[in-house]
Amino acid sequence: MRHTLSVMVMNHPGVLARVAGLFSRRGYNIDSVAVGKTEDPEVSRMTIVVDAEDEMTLEQITKQLYKLIDVIKINDITSTERVERELVLIKVSATSANRPEILQIVDIFRARVVDVSEKALIVEATGTQDKIEALIAMLKPFGLKELVRTGKVAMVRAGARQG
Amino acid sequence: MRHTLSVMVMNHPGVLARVAGLFSRRGYNIDSVAVGKTEDPEVSRMTIVVDAEDEMTLEQITKQLYKLIDVIKINDITSTERVERELVLIKVSATSANRPEILQIVDIFRARVVDVSEKALIVEATGTQDKIEALIAMLKPFGLKELVRTGKVAMVRAGARQG
Repeated sequence: MRHTLSVMVMNHPGVLARVAGLFSRRGYNIDSVAVGKTEDPEVSRMTIVVDAEDEMTLEQITKQLYKLIDVIKINDITSTERVERELVLIKVSATSANRPEILQIVDIFRARVVDVSEKALIVEATGTQDKIEALIAMLKPFGLKELVRTGKVAMVRAGARQG
Repeated sequence: MRHTLSVMVMNHPGVLARVAGLFSRRGYNIDSVAVGKTEDPEVSRMTIVVDAEDEMTLEQITKQLYKLIDVIKINDITSTERVERELVLIKVSATSANRPEILQIVDIFRARVVDVSEKALIVEATGTQDKIEALIAMLKPFGLKELVRTGKVAMVRAGARQG
């Protein structure tokens, strides 16, 4: 089962290496990780998506994460009501002939064109992973030149109990 | 000086730990990292922002990164014309009294409200780091309850030489 962990860490050198190392020593492949600042400049927040076959091992990992000095708090928000978003930039081949069709798809997905040249467009979109996969599938026939994704971030809903 | 590295890696267990470990052994704090899938499901792309005082050490790190078997390609896109974006989710205190004022700020920044309860809103925004810092500063007086950022992703502009 895929788990989403929200891990608050002190913003110290090496903390990412230690956290990532802990997962890799257990043979877990981290599906995606997004690390960014929080409201406190000393604290970073990692959103880690990991595929864990059994709950036991994930529990062990959580316990071991807590032993790392720079780890402040871990929340497994997999089963909490939450907002999930990912950002993607897609460079897609575009000529004057097919540009209108591409722009129509961009509109439907409430995405945005952030760069344009004679031969290509860069499209920015946010959404759940499903939405982003769907947008990529729609743009694929035009020719994807480049793709970069941030990995997922998640936040417990304002009205949810845990929030 | 702050450098933005775009690192293509094979999507194998442990690759993040090895890459992050290489930076931390050199005493470099990774400012932000975003890891996501690419157009090729076997390949992930890391966008790493690192503060490197001298070019020599960064060059050494690049060379050592290339020695890791799962590293395919490294681009230092610091001085290339590029699109830079980050995604942020902000949970801000909001009552019926001050909600209109918050929504006005959200509009100005072309941000979006993605969740609402009686006491709070979750705002989603994308942009350069400067824009996101500015939005956070504007929302701070209302009371920030939670903040999660993806870390920066970057893409060379469609018309730029390197693209």
